[in-house]
Amino acid sequence: MSDRRNAAIQFAHENRQRFLNELQEILTIPSVSTDPERKADMLRAAEWVAGKMRNLGIENVQVMPTPGHPVVYGEHLRAGSKAKTMLVYGHYDVQPAEPLDLWESGAFDPTVRGDNLYARGATDMKGQVMAALKAIEAVMSAGPLPINVKFLIEGEEEIGSPSLGAFIAGHKDLLACDFALNPDSGILDPELPTITYALRGLAYFEIRLYGPSQDLHSGVFGGVVHNPAQVLCELIAGMHDDQGHVTLPGFYDSVHPMSAEERAELARLPVNEASYLAQTGAKALWGETGYTPVERTGGRPTLEVNGLLSGFTGEGSKTVLPARAMAKVSCRLVPDQDPEVVYQQLLRYLEAKAPKTVRYEVIKHAGSPASISDRHSPAIQAIQKAMEAVWGIPPVFRREGGSVPVVVQFQTHLGVESVNVGFALPGDNMHAPNEKIHLPTWARGIDTLVHFIYNLSQ
Amino acid sequence: MSDRRNAAIQFAHENRQRFLNELQEILTIPSVSTDPERKADMLRAAEWVAGKMRNLGIENVQVMPTPGHPVVYGEHLRAGSKAKTMLVYGHYDVQPAEPLDLWESGAFDPTVRGDNLYARGATDMKGQVMAALKAIEAVMSAGPLPINVKFLIEGEEEIGSPSLGAFIAGHKDLLACDFALNPDSGILDPELPTITYALRGLAYFEIRLYGPSQDLHSGVFGGVVHNPAQVLCELIAGMHDDQGHVTLPGFYDSVHPMSAEERAELARLPVNEASYLAQTGAKALWGETGYTPVERTGGRPTLEVNGLLSGFTGEGSKTVLPARAMAKVSCRLVPDQDPEVVYQQLLRYLEAKAPKTVRYEVIKHAGSPASISDRHSPAIQAIQKAMEAVWGIPPVFRREGGSVPVVVQFQTHLGVESVNVGFALPGDNMHAPNEKIHLPTWARGIDTLVHFIYNLSQ
Repeated sequence: MSDRRNAAIQFAHENRQRFLNELQEILTIPSVSTDPERKADMLRAAEWVAGKMRNLGIENVQVMPTPGHPVVYGEHLRAGSKAKTMLVYGHYDVQPAEPLDLWESGAFDPTVRGDNLYARGATDMKGQVMAALKAIEAVMSAGPLPINVKFLIEGEEEIGSPSLGAFIAGHKDLLACDFALNPDSGILDPELPTITYALRGLAYFEIRLYGPSQDLHSGVFGGVVHNPAQVLCELIAGMHDDQGHVTLPGFYDSVHPMSAEERAELARLPVNEASYLAQTGAKALWGETGYTPVERTGGRPTLEVNGLLSGFTGEGSKTVLPARAMAKVSCRLVPDQDPEVVYQQLLRYLEAKAPKTVRYEVIKHAGSPASISDRHSPAIQAIQKAMEAVWGIPPVFRREGGSVPVVVQFQTHLGVESVNVGFALPGDNMHAPNEKIHLPTWARGIDTLVHFIYNLSQ
Repeated sequence: MSDRRNAAIQFAHENRQRFLNELQEILTIPSVSTDPERKADMLRAAEWVAGKMRNLGIENVQVMPTPGHPVVYGEHLRAGSKAKTMLVYGHYDVQPAEPLDLWESGAFDPTVRGDNLYARGATDMKGQVMAALKAIEAVMSAGPLPINVKFLIEGEEEIGSPSLGAFIAGHKDLLACDFALNPDSGILDPELPTITYALRGLAYFEIRLYGPSQDLHSGVFGGVVHNPAQVLCELIAGMHDDQGHVTLPGFYDSVHPMSAEERAELARLPVNEASYLAQTGAKALWGETGYTPVERTGGRPTLEVNGLLSGFTGEGSKTVLPARAMAKVSCRLVPDQDPEVVYQQLLRYLEAKAPKTVRYEVIKHAGSPASISDRHSPAIQAIQKAMEAVWGIPPVFRREGGSVPVVVQFQTHLGVESVNVGFALPGDNMHAPNEKIHLPTWARGIDTLVHFIYNLSQ
């Protein structure tokens, strides 16, 4: 197999310019999923991906309708029932390109400058989808594909994947696999291979407080009617103690502690107080005592106020005692917290703390559990070794603070974990003007995925 | 003088229908100060009032221009330098009548139904201005006016009196007087004569908190960047202790305590927990311990949140860690608090409590001190005796929770107190459809002012 591996890597290197040309081709299609006028372009991008798969020898390729934009499916299942089956996830839609005047070259006119290729979707994530396809092409050029592969390339990621959950739930047999590869992520630095092995979950609530039946004159009633904006502030203030811990009853009960090994690994990440300050413009950091910044964003649950609204918020002054007050509050969750249990904890907190002077209501907006991969699973070990082969150093493992719904959906509906390894860089201007992909890193990504496939078949 | 007094009262009673006809006449003029299309009607209303004064024998009557709507001035200064000089304040402008479809009869088609006269401005305050004019007419019908009188009838009260402060400051000699009569207020019940002897002041602030330099992803940065919405809630929550006291340092230092006599008087007011609950729809009352509801709204300073805004406040969810948060916060002040000192107290509070993770800024929006009249002054004693003569019972004294800028302006620029006695009723639908004046109360009001004038000359 070592000969085939070397041949595949050589094929990838020799065809680098052609791979780049193909990437540029798909980047000319303005597949902006949120724009109704781009519906034809969306279909064109889906068909382009499907055509590319068919050319590669991928079988049963279909552009499958959903209530929104279609999903591109394809499979290559000739490695036998003992070989692993990998489901490659991706999306062919992109963010809008506006503001257009901030682009140095056209958003859909892919342009190479230095080591980078500039275009909307270059890194998020047409480049990542192409890296996976080109790695498989390279492996197939050297011999039969040693694992089974399926593809699920959606067209609605940039609008929140509204059709995806039902699609996965409705096609469990078609999508059955051993694990998913999700290259919709990145590495921390061109010289620092990175594996994202955990994502935080989310429990998002809207708290509505009702005081008097209508807005009151604050002079006439200030001092006898409890102000719901004041009550809301008191309730929110009470949700953290002075050590930065969340005070919802039982909030930490099911939190899986980080192991000493894991904390040592996280300490290797090139992220520290200074880099957080530079990135955010905050005057000073803050958070739960006893944990480093990296641990706090990745490995610990948090509670955030996402929005506040009450009373008069225009210019100048209006002496109103507001009838109601609203806060959007969300918790980022870690294993093994359950969003539904957190909802119950919030209700218990409000039952205990809300004064009798007001009524309240809690609306659940979103909930998904955290996900974490076993860092010693065969798939993770295979990608770890692949990265080490390409970069010459072992990858760092990081826990990501955000949530990726598709990872949770694969867990929920297919019962599989995701390998979250893509090759975007922090400076790639995702969702911003002058999005780009770093071509040397892209080439290393293709090599990594070639190694990954061979490692999986050992 | 007792003969003249009786004759004047008899004149008022005999001319009641004519007085009503004249009130209906001015109520047909739609003098809506906020509506640019009513500019001609505003001038017509001002001229109507000026004409009515001239017919009465008031002298030096002028419709005086301001940057906005004109002021009507008039005087009758023939009582001699030893007699008191009363400045009658009023306004000839009215609120808009919308929504028109909720009126049972036309807003500017004054209609008597039962004991009430319905029209926009009937009680607020053309009826009150006419009561003062008709009382003076009655007194003059019985003999020479025993006091000196000046009139200042403005046309911008319903839009916040933007021109009035400069007008008063610019005409101090013209407006010089011993006290002002401000009938832009009411009594608590047709059978309960009421004197408003104190008004609260106001200090209004906008607090702006700045955290990170832009909105952040709450998943990526939640746990390391201090959320300014959370900080704002903590700062506001800390502004009251669990007894409902305001915690700004030194806030109560200059508060003039209520005397035992004053508290006994306030206890007579027909306002209690049940009536506040019915009026406001609140589930339960709240406030500073140790004081009754009436004392808390009238005699104690308060701090209210008038508005809150931060982050995402639309439908649904957005996982943002907001860059900034804003609160509008205002204090109602009692004698002898100074709005500027309260501003300094707020700054001291923020200096002590705001964490180093955020920047803050405080904008001053409005400030005026409280006003209180000596309840034993000759003018207050004169109106007290007048009410007792008409109603057969002594009036109650109340402290009003709101602020009336003109009362403060008379204090500031002319150095005089105001007698705040008008004859509106709580159910008169001020600023609402079907505004009305209760005619028996209006007639008692005219009688009261006749007695008042004679009492002042004793």
